[in-house]
Amino acid sequence: MKKYVIIVAGGKGNRFGSQVPKQFVELCGKPILMWTISAFHDYSSEIDPIVVLPRNQFDFWKELCQKYQFNIPHRLVKGGNERFHSVKNGLKVIQEHGLVAIHDGVRPLIDQKTIEICYAMAQAEGNAIPTTPLVDSLREISADGKNTHVDRNNYRLIQTPQVFQTQFILKAYEQEFSQKFTDDGSVFEAIYPNAIKLVEGNRQNIKITTNEDLVYAEAILVLKNRKE
Amino acid sequence: MKKYVIIVAGGKGNRFGSQVPKQFVELCGKPILMWTISAFHDYSSEIDPIVVLPRNQFDFWKELCQKYQFNIPHRLVKGGNERFHSVKNGLKVIQEHGLVAIHDGVRPLIDQKTIEICYAMAQAEGNAIPTTPLVDSLREISADGKNTHVDRNNYRLIQTPQVFQTQFILKAYEQEFSQKFTDDGSVFEAIYPNAIKLVEGNRQNIKITTNEDLVYAEAILVLKNRKE
Repeated sequence: MKKYVIIVAGGKGNRFGSQVPKQFVELCGKPILMWTISAFHDYSSEIDPIVVLPRNQFDFWKELCQKYQFNIPHRLVKGGNERFHSVKNGLKVIQEHGLVAIHDGVRPLIDQKTIEICYAMAQAEGNAIPTTPLVDSLREISADGKNTHVDRNNYRLIQTPQVFQTQFILKAYEQEFSQKFTDDGSVFEAIYPNAIKLVEGNRQNIKITTNEDLVYAEAILVLKNRKE
Repeated sequence: MKKYVIIVAGGKGNRFGSQVPKQFVELCGKPILMWTISAFHDYSSEIDPIVVLPRNQFDFWKELCQKYQFNIPHRLVKGGNERFHSVKNGLKVIQEHGLVAIHDGVRPLIDQKTIEICYAMAQAEGNAIPTTPLVDSLREISADGKNTHVDRNNYRLIQTPQVFQTQFILKAYEQEFSQKFTDDGSVFEAIYPNAIKLVEGNRQNIKITTNEDLVYAEAILVLKNRKE
């Protein structure tokens, strides 16, 4: 089956206290977004990468690609107001039936095994969402502001890549946007109830949103290099 | 008010693939547990630390204290079968009315501000539990194995130190053990419903359970040193 990956990088860079959007922040010698694209390309050079960026970042990204001699072929698609609209724009350029992974641009530590498992499960079952168990305890906040202990074993943390057979996710993205969509699984589920297939993710595959996350990512990359 | 901290370190060291229990693993030059005790001592040398360890680790710990010239005064109390029983043993040696923080031995990155906020809130309101928002999406697994997206904004991740006025937590720990107790807040809540006070924690304050966590902790400590 033809394999796509839509890499969504909508960051405007507020939390780093800098003008550089977080997807462009340098991590061990190259921008975060390049690590992310490379991870999928390293898994299979047959994967067709679609990179979604705010329109006003296209020129800067092209300059970065030249500067870092980054030459993995990929298509650039302009982002929308919300993540939902960015993904939708990415889906529009898919021409063939196949599998599409949707991945956060700022999750550069995605590992080959998780990519493999997600594509394989989606090929077999229509979709796949990587999850990890909770290490910390969990409390639920109710509408009246009260909070109650809930059993963390009944919950899973959700990551990306979330992988779908193209016909299902294209259909799901025809619906109207809702604020409750925080990931592609929630968009999919609104059309196909009780159909989400969970697979095992990897705790290392963090979303980089703060400077501490960046420090963690550096440490993990250094550790990986030591092992190789 | 008199301030205690019960530091619970029950780890037997399976996940590190070594014979050394994780609380004794070296982190930037000293065992994790020493960092944890030091964090509370640095906040206030008036705090009375009660360290709960498996009985068969006492001698090894004393050797480590000599080797690393670790001389912050603390009492050693023997651990129980479950974390619940370990905390209960720690509570038994409290003599005075006051505030008691209960903290995981393998959360060495606890910061002064969180310690301060937790003791202050518990003094005012009877208890305080530090929490952080979820960065990842969340799904709930129901008894029949189905999984459903839930709004992560309605949940909080729970950390330690969880701080209580001694009379309340002593009372709560008189009840029978239940498997649903994953932290002290859940023990407290079983006796005092809807009484838990949430305060803002710090995402850095992780529980070290894997080698990757250790790498993260090293990175954070190096970063802190660079700032100081």
